[in-house]
Amino acid sequence: MENILRQVQEGKLTIDEAMKVLKPYEDLGFAKVDHHRKKRQGFPEFIFGEGKTPEQIMAIFEAMQKRGDDVVVTRVDKEKAAEILVKHPEVTYHETARILSWKAVDSQEKRTGYIAILCAGTSDLPVAEEAAVIAELLGSNVRRFYDVGVAGIHRLLDHAEEIQGATVSVVVAGMEGALASVVGGLVSHPVIAVPTSVGYGASFNGVSALLTMLNSCASGVSVVNIDNGFGGGYQAVLIDRLAGKGSD
Amino acid sequence: MENILRQVQEGKLTIDEAMKVLKPYEDLGFAKVDHHRKKRQGFPEFIFGEGKTPEQIMAIFEAMQKRGDDVVVTRVDKEKAAEILVKHPEVTYHETARILSWKAVDSQEKRTGYIAILCAGTSDLPVAEEAAVIAELLGSNVRRFYDVGVAGIHRLLDHAEEIQGATVSVVVAGMEGALASVVGGLVSHPVIAVPTSVGYGASFNGVSALLTMLNSCASGVSVVNIDNGFGGGYQAVLIDRLAGKGSD
Amino acid sequence: MENILRQVQEGKLTIDEAMKVLKPYEDLGFAKVDHHRKKRQGFPEFIFGEGKTPEQIMAIFEAMQKRGDDVVVTRVDKEKAAEILVKHPEVTYHETARILSWKAVDSQEKRTGYIAILCAGTSDLPVAEEAAVIAELLGSNVRRFYDVGVAGIHRLLDHAEEIQGATVSVVVAGMEGALASVVGGLVSHPVIAVPTSVGYGASFNGVSALLTMLNSCASGVSVVNIDNGFGGGYQAVLIDRLAGKGSD
Amino acid sequence: MENILRQVQEGKLTIDEAMKVLKPYEDLGFAKVDHHRKKRQGFPEFIFGEGKTPEQIMAIFEAMQKRGDDVVVTRVDKEKAAEILVKHPEVTYHETARILSWKAVDSQEKRTGYIAILCAGTSDLPVAEEAAVIAELLGSNVRRFYDVGVAGIHRLLDHAEEIQGATVSVVVAGMEGALASVVGGLVSHPVIAVPTSVGYGASFNGVSALLTMLNSCASGVSVVNIDNGFGGGYQAVLIDRLAGKGSD
Amino acid sequence: MENILRQVQEGKLTIDEAMKVLKPYEDLGFAKVDHHRKKRQGFPEFIFGEGKTPEQIMAIFEAMQKRGDDVVVTRVDKEKAAEILVKHPEVTYHETARILSWKAVDSQEKRTGYIAILCAGTSDLPVAEEAAVIAELLGSNVRRFYDVGVAGIHRLLDHAEEIQGATVSVVVAGMEGALASVVGGLVSHPVIAVPTSVGYGASFNGVSALLTMLNSCASGVSVVNIDNGFGGGYQAVLIDRLAGKGSD
Amino acid sequence: MENILRQVQEGKLTIDEAMKVLKPYEDLGFAKVDHHRKKRQGFPEFIFGEGKTPEQIMAIFEAMQKRGDDVVVTRVDKEKAAEILVKHPEVTYHETARILSWKAVDSQEKRTGYIAILCAGTSDLPVAEEAAVIAELLGSNVRRFYDVGVAGIHRLLDHAEEIQGATVSVVVAGMEGALASVVGGLVSHPVIAVPTSVGYGASFNGVSALLTMLNSCASGVSVVNIDNGFGGGYQAVLIDRLAGKGSD
Amino acid sequence: MENILRQVQEGKLTIDEAMKVLKPYEDLGFAKVDHHRKKRQGFPEFIFGEGKTPEQIMAIFEAMQKRGDDVVVTRVDKEKAAEILVKHPEVTYHETARILSWKAVDSQEKRTGYIAILCAGTSDLPVAEEAAVIAELLGSNVRRFYDVGVAGIHRLLDHAEEIQGATVSVVVAGMEGALASVVGGLVSHPVIAVPTSVGYGASFNGVSALLTMLNSCASGVSVVNIDNGFGGGYQAVLIDRLAGKGSD
Amino acid sequence: MENILRQVQEGKLTIDEAMKVLKPYEDLGFAKVDHHRKKRQGFPEFIFGEGKTPEQIMAIFEAMQKRGDDVVVTRVDKEKAAEILVKHPEVTYHETARILSWKAVDSQEKRTGYIAILCAGTSDLPVAEEAAVIAELLGSNVRRFYDVGVAGIHRLLDHAEEIQGATVSVVVAGMEGALASVVGGLVSHPVIAVPTSVGYGASFNGVSALLTMLNSCASGVSVVNIDNGFGGGYQAVLIDRLAGKGSD
Repeated sequence: MENILRQVQEGKLTIDEAMKVLKPYEDLGFAKVDHHRKKRQGFPEFIFGEGKTPEQIMAIFEAMQKRGDDVVVTRVDKEKAAEILVKHPEVTYHETARILSWKAVDSQEKRTGYIAILCAGTSDLPVAEEAAVIAELLGSNVRRFYDVGVAGIHRLLDHAEEIQGATVSVVVAGMEGALASVVGGLVSHPVIAVPTSVGYGASFNGVSALLTMLNSCASGVSVVNIDNGFGGGYQAVLIDRLAGKGSD
Repeated sequence: MENILRQVQEGKLTIDEAMKVLKPYEDLGFAKVDHHRKKRQGFPEFIFGEGKTPEQIMAIFEAMQKRGDDVVVTRVDKEKAAEILVKHPEVTYHETARILSWKAVDSQEKRTGYIAILCAGTSDLPVAEEAAVIAELLGSNVRRFYDVGVAGIHRLLDHAEEIQGATVSVVVAGMEGALASVVGGLVSHPVIAVPTSVGYGASFNGVSALLTMLNSCASGVSVVNIDNGFGGGYQAVLIDRLAGKGSD
Repeated sequence: MENILRQVQEGKLTIDEAMKVLKPYEDLGFAKVDHHRKKRQGFPEFIFGEGKTPEQIMAIFEAMQKRGDDVVVTRVDKEKAAEILVKHPEVTYHETARILSWKAVDSQEKRTGYIAILCAGTSDLPVAEEAAVIAELLGSNVRRFYDVGVAGIHRLLDHAEEIQGATVSVVVAGMEGALASVVGGLVSHPVIAVPTSVGYGASFNGVSALLTMLNSCASGVSVVNIDNGFGGGYQAVLIDRLAGKGSD
Repeated sequence: MENILRQVQEGKLTIDEAMKVLKPYEDLGFAKVDHHRKKRQGFPEFIFGEGKTPEQIMAIFEAMQKRGDDVVVTRVDKEKAAEILVKHPEVTYHETARILSWKAVDSQEKRTGYIAILCAGTSDLPVAEEAAVIAELLGSNVRRFYDVGVAGIHRLLDHAEEIQGATVSVVVAGMEGALASVVGGLVSHPVIAVPTSVGYGASFNGVSALLTMLNSCASGVSVVNIDNGFGGGYQAVLIDRLAGKGSD
Repeated sequence: MENILRQVQEGKLTIDEAMKVLKPYEDLGFAKVDHHRKKRQGFPEFIFGEGKTPEQIMAIFEAMQKRGDDVVVTRVDKEKAAEILVKHPEVTYHETARILSWKAVDSQEKRTGYIAILCAGTSDLPVAEEAAVIAELLGSNVRRFYDVGVAGIHRLLDHAEEIQGATVSVVVAGMEGALASVVGGLVSHPVIAVPTSVGYGASFNGVSALLTMLNSCASGVSVVNIDNGFGGGYQAVLIDRLAGKGSD
Repeated sequence: MENILRQVQEGKLTIDEAMKVLKPYEDLGFAKVDHHRKKRQGFPEFIFGEGKTPEQIMAIFEAMQKRGDDVVVTRVDKEKAAEILVKHPEVTYHETARILSWKAVDSQEKRTGYIAILCAGTSDLPVAEEAAVIAELLGSNVRRFYDVGVAGIHRLLDHAEEIQGATVSVVVAGMEGALASVVGGLVSHPVIAVPTSVGYGASFNGVSALLTMLNSCASGVSVVNIDNGFGGGYQAVLIDRLAGKGSD
Repeated sequence: MENILRQVQEGKLTIDEAMKVLKPYEDLGFAKVDHHRKKRQGFPEFIFGEGKTPEQIMAIFEAMQKRGDDVVVTRVDKEKAAEILVKHPEVTYHETARILSWKAVDSQEKRTGYIAILCAGTSDLPVAEEAAVIAELLGSNVRRFYDVGVAGIHRLLDHAEEIQGATVSVVVAGMEGALASVVGGLVSHPVIAVPTSVGYGASFNGVSALLTMLNSCASGVSVVNIDNGFGGGYQAVLIDRLAGKGSD
Repeated sequence: MENILRQVQEGKLTIDEAMKVLKPYEDLGFAKVDHHRKKRQGFPEFIFGEGKTPEQIMAIFEAMQKRGDDVVVTRVDKEKAAEILVKHPEVTYHETARILSWKAVDSQEKRTGYIAILCAGTSDLPVAEEAAVIAELLGSNVRRFYDVGVAGIHRLLDHAEEIQGATVSVVVAGMEGALASVVGGLVSHPVIAVPTSVGYGASFNGVSALLTMLNSCASGVSVVNIDNGFGGGYQAVLIDRLAGKGSD
């Protein structure tokens, strides 16, 4: 701030210019689009598709497309996606991950490490894929280890070395969510745990898995919201990106 | 019932006798002592020591001792035990398990199998020992596998074969309680899971571990109340006893 | 492990063979089918049908059928079952239990004891039947005691002797779930309690019954997840199987 | 109200008198003592002793005594009671029930029926006695059935006839609280259920028993707050009083 | 029991007859119909219609009708009722109360007192009417005081005298459920509080009203399950019936 | 009251007139319409449209319209509104706010201050608009600050001065609801916080936002029920009205 | 901001001065004291005394006193207060309210209206007094209506007119918290509801009262945290202050 | 594994040696000390001091010291620390952080980046310091930003640039926990959120802050258990270490 004030004092910056620097978004009426986000965070804003009509999604999409921004829309079911693809065949739809993307970040420098994405059962796949696709769209390499729940511990242990080689792991699990603790004990890198609402009865839509993960006896495990595959993938990318920074 | 009615009809049973058979307890005023229990369950009644004064415990103890019943008192802390031992040096105090016992069941036929009792961390020891001591007092063989939490999975796997050889496992764990799922996946015998109140924050005094165990992705796991080492050990003995029945 | 290492050292086992022994599943891409499970647990893997399409169920089913594995699919509603039966008329559908089975375990040696399966009200029937059918498919004898809720205690007491004769009881109850405690007090064998989501208002979809059962004042009661008839039946079979072991 | 207005209009009632009829309490500064309560409810106001100092209790007590009102103070522990008895030896202390009373209601007409008060275990005694003593102080006959928990159902059934003869039952139980349902199924009179905070782990200080009772599968069961022996006894007296009304 | 044993001993009762007296229900296969209930409770068994098909309801209905039992079915929605009325035009459908009845208890002696049924808002009507219709079917007189919520306290106070004249009040309220406390303070007879699931947000489907009622600062209030209009009405009838007993 | 009694005594008021003054509502059978409310509160009664049929809404509406009362119906979805507008084209439908209004309060004196209504995200709009439209219908000026969630804090700070100029702020937010605390720290006027059920997973339908707001570290923040835009707007109007009172 | 930038540009403001205006606090190492708060909010910062030692409280107190700021410390128990008063006899201690104050705001212009502070029972007094003393220290007039719980509704109604004359009401209640709804229905000004942790059993330390208040069927009620008398009083002052603004 | 098997096959590894490699801990009877952990994780095992006696802590400490391992004990209160320091003056005690350390990791290579540790209020200091000290002991640079809660947003914004310069932020906050969202929106690196149990009433010992953080509207935020400063600091170090890896 001191810097900007000085430039204004010295006449290097007009008041209008100074204000624009401090106003990092454009007010479009029904939404404030954050154009500074890419500068601040390194990525464009993401659109949460759940609860939005195809029309609303396309409106925001087109606004961002016009400015040349990359577009990523999460939580888009098959029906909505079909409607949108008719008008925008240039868009890619990742079905299991329920993600729509357009030209997201592919020009980014290639990283050398990789993110390990694990899930406990096949019902956890949509959340795991949401994490995986987000990570890939943001330029990270991803290796998938699916259906490695702790009830058959050898399925997991067989991949121990490859998992240990990752820069960060994303562990996706519902029901009792014990996988995060076991992985946390196997690796020496950060683990991002994503509880899912998979289960029934006393799983309470993911609360059981959430509590398990928060209480993990292994160190180096942190947790995002239930079914928040996006959040898990995004956090992993932030960490993976750091791992490559030293080499720049 | 038909049988008893017939005996009464045929005069083989007086009404008083018939009524005694149906009245399986003695009303001592402040408590109804269940003398049929041994016949029905195979074990004497247990006394829950928590919330009882040393005087109350001794009163019940002496009443049972007079009839020749075995005596087992659970949840007796060190101070209470010391007071009781002064007057009743014939009693044995199991300190970690917080159990007082007198001549419990040791004449029982020796079983050939054994119960595996596992716990995740050293803080779970009192609950695990409560289970172990109860099982031993009721005539079962016990093997202990302590401090084998899932954050260091190899500590558990090293004992896999010996655990698999048991007739039944009792898995005691607090925090995230993931151990029950992993054990459930390793063995082909019943697993009794005992959540403990060990942990802090979002462990909610054992609720987290309880939910984990109820939602276990492994089959063959059933659960008792939080910190209920007695219940876990007792249930294991009932199962272990069945395993030996065939040979009689 | 020592054993396998020794065989490798002595050249009795090639490395490939040694690895196969330690890799107890086959990776089919979208799922890891656990072929060692039968060896480890004595039963084939079960398929949880809820949330799977008829196509997905048939795909897994056919894969298992090809290898000669028995097939058991739980939580299959009437509509899904109808679709599957058209293509696979060799499959049996147990309607109330919502289970599909094919050639499950019927060659198994006959046991002499039986499992008692009790339920409190007629609304608990689907869960009770899930337990009963699973137990029968896995080779146990089952006796059903339905609609014996505690509000009419004589309905239960009339069957006391027959229930006491079982090796293990499975008690299925919703609403207040009090049946488990009463049965636990009547019998001297293990009781597996299955809370159901039957009820309304403050039953909280089975939480009330679950808490009742966890807090049972009777010893020898352990609990599985809400509506988990499969889990209750499976645990009972593990116990029932032990009861017969001695005679081998 | 129309009646009072008419009397005022006709001059039969002065405005002051009319206002007094509508102002049923006396404002003593730190408390508003409800002197109309006896007229409205048939009983004097009760004092909740918990959280009050012996001095505060005595101040209210003396104020009521001066007016000739009966005095009943609940939740008074042994230490407080001792302090008060030194200054007021005319007061009676009911130790297990934790109640102080002075001349409460003993001149009342004798009723012919009786209230059955049942409790599940010996730890429930203080709450059961609170209910019993309140009922006796308010002129009802009480019969106690203690330690009749459902884990030994015959202890309860032996008294079935005598319990069925009561005008109303008060059922006091902690842990899983199943006793209320069983009693509700045995009798044809109203049952007032009082959950207690007795238990541990997943009993959650009485929540488990409370939910059990609210979900009772037996009709004719209504519930008061956890540990509210006073409320249970009071409600029973209101009902018992109705039973005798017809004969007046 | 002693009595029956004596009659068997003296030959006055055959064993078959003795057993029938002790077996108070008939086992119809899919349900155990309790024919002793009328003798024990004074009323026939009620059928909970929710979750039952019209066919199932009619099957039970016809079985009871054949024996001359009265029939009352609760929780029957409009569509189900229409289907049943086509085949059984002799049945009466109480639409708001969602109750089907046939010849229920109308020959019963007329009582002189009445039950006051109050509800807070118009959305509570179905639950209030369930209570009211049950009470009328079981022979009680009912007076309705609807839409008298505490936000407009004068609506309630205008009826104070008439409410005070009842033998028992049933107070039905959702949202914050405060009406029970206010009524409890106005009357000197028992109050049965019925929380309803009316409300939104932090009303948590009736939990807020339930807690309010359990914590009522007024004495003489007891509570039944959320939306349990039947339970509230039934309990009120049990109490109302007692009020008339003295005159017999 | 004294006043009215005096007038009755002096014959200035007949008993009928006196009673009408004290009976501030009209009993229409299925509902008690509160005609005194406008006098007491300054506004007509509002109708909660959720769970009411279009017919029921129109019935109440027409009754109020006949008496010349203003009409405001909240929670009316698009379909219901369309049905009503066909018969009552004179009514205005505010679509996002889901409110129907007729001639509400527009003759009211114009206030000089304004209410600031803020919301965190676009999904919170319906609740924010409910607050805004209610406030405008009741005569307040409203300024909207939408999509100013704390994840992009500058969007909020840019409007700080204008927000600070309001008489009262209504802050509408779901998910983590942090906006209320930040606004509470920026302004020196009262803040009414409205949690919304927007979010997923551990947002628990608004509970997370509700708790955040209740625990706000900023002073001057009070909270209404989840999604209660009406309550937030109404409370703000009561406060805004006070702000203008001095000038009358 | 534009304004400040312009002054910097025109040289009217040095950069240092501009930065001070934007940095509204002083960093004292262990705490950041907010000296702009008085300017922004109109009141000095308050100190939350709970969990602070007397030494820490005095340190902050002395720092503020030196700058001439008013000092208000809440949640100070008797023992801490005694220690502080020894060193600072100039401080006033409000015992029931547990507040320490020094020269707070007494020079403030006198307001003409008053705040009504109501509480349901005598146990709610500390929280009610916290609200009352805060309001008085901040220059508002307060009228107290204590012990007016809804179980004796006439105690409240007798004061209806005086309560209606207030600018704002603060309603403090524990147990079932119904008082807020009744008051909300009586008055046409804003009501701030303060739930207290008074109660036992299912009151869950204030949760029951909190839910009641959030679900209030009366409009114009908003809620602060459990036991937050300070928050209730503060919010009331903000509103009361607005009421007087018009006359300036 | 294949590698080890090959070496065994080729005789390069004896069976004993092979087994040691796979047995990464030493069984000391009462605890299994994990000596491989340093190799696997890069850090020695940490000791959780809460619930352990000074004797137990010293026993483990001395065992580790003997092997030359670094020692870090968390959650050690002042009294325990004093006892230990008498015998082990070589140990360092970090009072606010409640950590005991001996020679931990100081020879580690110096990193160039730094971790930002923020806390909302002064009561959050012990948890924040636990995170900070752990991070420093493990070789990271730490910058502290304390008392920057969102109620005075400018206190935070003044440090925005310095916070943005960190590799990772740890945000510690109790009460409503809103700070994590605001920081998450300001920075482009990972944020680890640590909820604390600071607060009262509806903060429910940290649950409110936990939910806020899990529902954060900002991306890049993951959460650890309530009060788990250790977990937050440890996770931050894992990430910070990655940031420096590139330069090796």
